[in-house]
Amino acid sequence: MEVVQVLHMNGGVGETSYAKNSLLQQKVITMTKPITEEAITKLYCSKYPEEIAIADLGCSSGPNTFFLVSELLKVVDSVRQKIGQKSPEYQVFLNDLPGNDFNTIFRSLSIFQNKLRKQLGPGNGPCFFTGVPGSFYGRLFRKNSLHFVHSSYSLHWLSQVPQGLESNKRNIYMASTSPPDVLKAYYVQFQKDFSLFLKCRSEELVDGGRMVLTLIGRRSDDPSSKECCYFWELLAMPLSDMLVEGLIEEEKLNSFNIPMYTPSPAEVKYEVVKEGSFNIDRLEVTEVNWNAYLDETDLSDAFKDGGYNVAKCMRAVAEPLLASYFGEEILDEVFRRYREIISDRLSKEKNEFVNVTVSLIKP
Amino acid sequence: MEVVQVLHMNGGVGETSYAKNSLLQQKVITMTKPITEEAITKLYCSKYPEEIAIADLGCSSGPNTFFLVSELLKVVDSVRQKIGQKSPEYQVFLNDLPGNDFNTIFRSLSIFQNKLRKQLGPGNGPCFFTGVPGSFYGRLFRKNSLHFVHSSYSLHWLSQVPQGLESNKRNIYMASTSPPDVLKAYYVQFQKDFSLFLKCRSEELVDGGRMVLTLIGRRSDDPSSKECCYFWELLAMPLSDMLVEGLIEEEKLNSFNIPMYTPSPAEVKYEVVKEGSFNIDRLEVTEVNWNAYLDETDLSDAFKDGGYNVAKCMRAVAEPLLASYFGEEILDEVFRRYREIISDRLSKEKNEFVNVTVSLIKP
Repeated sequence: MEVVQVLHMNGGVGETSYAKNSLLQQKVITMTKPITEEAITKLYCSKYPEEIAIADLGCSSGPNTFFLVSELLKVVDSVRQKIGQKSPEYQVFLNDLPGNDFNTIFRSLSIFQNKLRKQLGPGNGPCFFTGVPGSFYGRLFRKNSLHFVHSSYSLHWLSQVPQGLESNKRNIYMASTSPPDVLKAYYVQFQKDFSLFLKCRSEELVDGGRMVLTLIGRRSDDPSSKECCYFWELLAMPLSDMLVEGLIEEEKLNSFNIPMYTPSPAEVKYEVVKEGSFNIDRLEVTEVNWNAYLDETDLSDAFKDGGYNVAKCMRAVAEPLLASYFGEEILDEVFRRYREIISDRLSKEKNEFVNVTVSLIKP
Repeated sequence: MEVVQVLHMNGGVGETSYAKNSLLQQKVITMTKPITEEAITKLYCSKYPEEIAIADLGCSSGPNTFFLVSELLKVVDSVRQKIGQKSPEYQVFLNDLPGNDFNTIFRSLSIFQNKLRKQLGPGNGPCFFTGVPGSFYGRLFRKNSLHFVHSSYSLHWLSQVPQGLESNKRNIYMASTSPPDVLKAYYVQFQKDFSLFLKCRSEELVDGGRMVLTLIGRRSDDPSSKECCYFWELLAMPLSDMLVEGLIEEEKLNSFNIPMYTPSPAEVKYEVVKEGSFNIDRLEVTEVNWNAYLDETDLSDAFKDGGYNVAKCMRAVAEPLLASYFGEEILDEVFRRYREIISDRLSKEKNEFVNVTVSLIKP
């Protein structure tokens, strides 16, 4: 169960954060901005509250940690200026696992705050920042203390590797060759986790509070469809090859599985309705290319190689999981091979992450 | 103004935390426990609130970060069990400057929470922890969002080195040889800072909210009295000697001053009354020996040397200030000499820090 500990807070050791690729994450936030913007506007315009408490769950630590917050504050400030309201006070809770680098966030806070002050002009705020370490698969905040919850690219991570994946052998995630009991075990864990997440947040949000969640998912009803499993299947390839070459132990590979679930919009909807605390305002699907740098100009040569970009992105996400299971020493070789595979596939086909975004209101 | 930046949050660089000696700090918290205990008990028993938001300002990062919180929670839990009340939910805000090591606090949180759960037994809490980076000489929290504020051994630090200390020459703090305008400049800065602190906290505390503050102070009316200035005077001695030996520049030493103020109870009272937001419930003075290890048994040989203990304690506090002003390279020599001086004095006289503790209520 080492893998679980890497991603989850139990035990107090080996915890990491919801590592994210900066540009990909920024693109997803920008892409889902109409939904977030509508939700925060509706929240603000329903009561013109004097204070707004915002939580970003799985905030990570990097250039994007403050990106979402600044987008939200700009929206509220624009609305309140139009209608001549005094600015609310903001309380921003930045949450991630205890292993996240909160020191770096906190040390860059004053630069961000100065920038924000200039962007928004006088009469705005104040905005108070706090860091909240802990797993969102449990309570993190006082009852009725939040107005707006946001989470992007974190909730597809399960609280633990599902039980009963023994028959998944050389796959490392759900795959076209996974037996039905593996697909079921994954789905059961997702249901349990997502339902618990909704229950905890419903206790923490005030009545009328809103929540916008974006997670990697799929359009298809089939949980082992290519659109959501392919990037893990491609990572399983070098691992299988290295097993054949004696570089990885068979038993280790057979028992290694990624603690993730990429739900369909219907599955998200089903859990929300079943849990019963929230109404769905919007439920949408978007796509973003695996290679976040695809349409960027002014790139250095390295970033022009899609295989490099995608492998780098996946390495940031998968490295802690692989390292704790197989040891650090195999990583360079795994990702060298992975990069070659990705480069080959990108030249032949278009590959995209499917994002499921749901906007919820606690009635 | 480098010294200011070390201690204060302006500029986003060189910020540190309110470094504290663990054992000394623990002794002070234990010594002032009757006052803290009374305050939190009165707070709880006035309304039996369903939630209690506690802020510890200048929490530092070390074994004592959670010590105070666990003491407070034990008190409330003991009272609520006696009267058969359901436990409140706790929200604990741990505040320090952005340079504080919050990562270490957050990573030890789950161990502390498990320990606390065992100590308090079932039915207690939950208790949610957040980290709040920033200077307490400014707003840190939303309006009316706190019930209890605590600060120990942090508020004697000023927000900046007072203006107009040019005539303080080879002194590094107020001293018996300091001219009157130096004493006045220090007092003016204290008044400004302490008053701003009270104003900010009064906005953040709910009506009926309480605050217990302990700072290093003095009994005497004379701000340059030995009881509060002696430990800095002794540190000025090796610096002066090293100036004579050409190891330190005259101009640098002449312009170096410690941004601290050690008020009398009367001065604390005067500011509280003048600012007007709080009533004083208790105002008390205690003493703690410079050498925190004095009455400890089972000490390793090093800790049996009072000079070593006090020099180590003072180095933790003064090192960032001295290093940013004079450079790292002189520190070992300064504190080697300081240790000798302290050892000599401790053998001849009893030296104590005077603590001023004030318990306030927002009516």
